[in-house]
Amino acid sequence: MSPRPSVRPGGRSARVQQSVHTAVRELQAERGRPDLTVPLIAARAGVTPSTIYRRWGDLKELLSDVAVERLRPEAPPADLGSLREDLEHWAVSFLEEMSSPAGRCYIRDALAGDPDGSNAGQCSAYAIEAVETILARAAQRGEHVPPTDAVMDHVVAPMMYRILFRQGLLDPQYARDLVATVFYRLMPLP
Amino acid sequence: MSPRPSVRPGGRSARVQQSVHTAVRELQAERGRPDLTVPLIAARAGVTPSTIYRRWGDLKELLSDVAVERLRPEAPPADLGSLREDLEHWAVSFLEEMSSPAGRCYIRDALAGDPDGSNAGQCSAYAIEAVETILARAAQRGEHVPPTDAVMDHVVAPMMYRILFRQGLLDPQYARDLVATVFYRLMPLP
Repeated sequence: MSPRPSVRPGGRSARVQQSVHTAVRELQAERGRPDLTVPLIAARAGVTPSTIYRRWGDLKELLSDVAVERLRPEAPPADLGSLREDLEHWAVSFLEEMSSPAGRCYIRDALAGDPDGSNAGQCSAYAIEAVETILARAAQRGEHVPPTDAVMDHVVAPMMYRILFRQGLLDPQYARDLVATVFYRLMPLP
Repeated sequence: MSPRPSVRPGGRSARVQQSVHTAVRELQAERGRPDLTVPLIAARAGVTPSTIYRRWGDLKELLSDVAVERLRPEAPPADLGSLREDLEHWAVSFLEEMSSPAGRCYIRDALAGDPDGSNAGQCSAYAIEAVETILARAAQRGEHVPPTDAVMDHVVAPMMYRILFRQGLLDPQYARDLVATVFYRLMPLP
C-alpha cells in the first residue's frame, strides 16, 4: 500500500477506507472504468473529494489499492494430498484468474497507481504465501520440495509475463508444463 | 500499437506522430510526468488537442506509445563469440536498463495505456527479437541452442517479474544465474 496514515481497525479511517473501496467497486460494476472520477466516488461513498485526495493522492492510487484488495486470495490453496497435484491445481487456478479480463485489469490498475511499488509487492506476497503454504504442507508429508523462489521464478513469473506481455499463449497445460519443469528439471538434489 | 489510422512514412500523419512524441519527451524531461496534460503537449507540438484525442484517445494511450518507442533497443545484442557469453551479456544489460527508474517507468506507462495489449506485445517482441538473434548466431557457429521460449520463460520472465513485483531482489548475478539454469537444467537433449 502507498504510505498513508495508519488505519486503526474500526476507527473512522477504516470506515472511510471501506466506504470508498465499496463505492469504487459499485461504480466500476455499474459504469465501467473510463467514467470514474474522484467527485463521483466521493459522492457515492458519502465523503468529500478532498478526503480522497488527502488519503490516496489521486484516482490512480485509489484504483491501485482497490485492485490489490480484489487480488487477495479468498481461500488457502487446495490440499489434494501431493505436492505435484497441489502445485498444478494452484497454478492452473492462478492462471485462470489472473488472465481473465477482470484479473488483467486489476493487475494493470495495481501497477499503474503504485509510485513506491508496495502494491505490486503485495501482489507477489499473495503468491509467495500460497506457494509457501503448499511447500510447507508437502514438507510435513515428508515430500522433497523445491525452494519457494524456484516456483516464483519458473512457474509464477512465466505465467505473469505471458499474461501481461504475450496474450494468446495461455492455457491450463502451460501452467502444468511449468510445474513439470520444476519437478523434473529444477528440483534440488535430495 | 493501438489501432489507429495507418501512417504513411513522410506523410502528415508521420509528422504529427513525430512532433507529438518529441513534445512528450521534452516535457517529461523538463517537468516530470504528473504535470503532463494533453493541451500542454499539443501546444508544444504545434497541433490542436483534438488532433491528439482523435489519434490516441487519451493521455495514457499517448504515453504508452511514447514509452514503447523508448523501450526499442538501440542496437542488436553484442557478439562475444559464444552463446553463454552473449546471453549473459544481453540478460545483464536488459536487467540493468529495465530495472532503472526510467525503465520501470516506461514499462508501467506502456502497460497502463494499452487497452488491446499491442504495446505490451511490442515490448516482448523486442526481447524475442534479441534472443532469436543470439540463438541464430550460436546455431550458425554450430552450438547447441535452447528454444526461444525457454529463454523467454526462464530468463526474461523472471527478471521482468522481479522488476515489476519484487523490487530489491535484482543484481547482475541474478541474470547470470538464470542463464546458467537454462544452460545446465533446461537445455533440450542434443
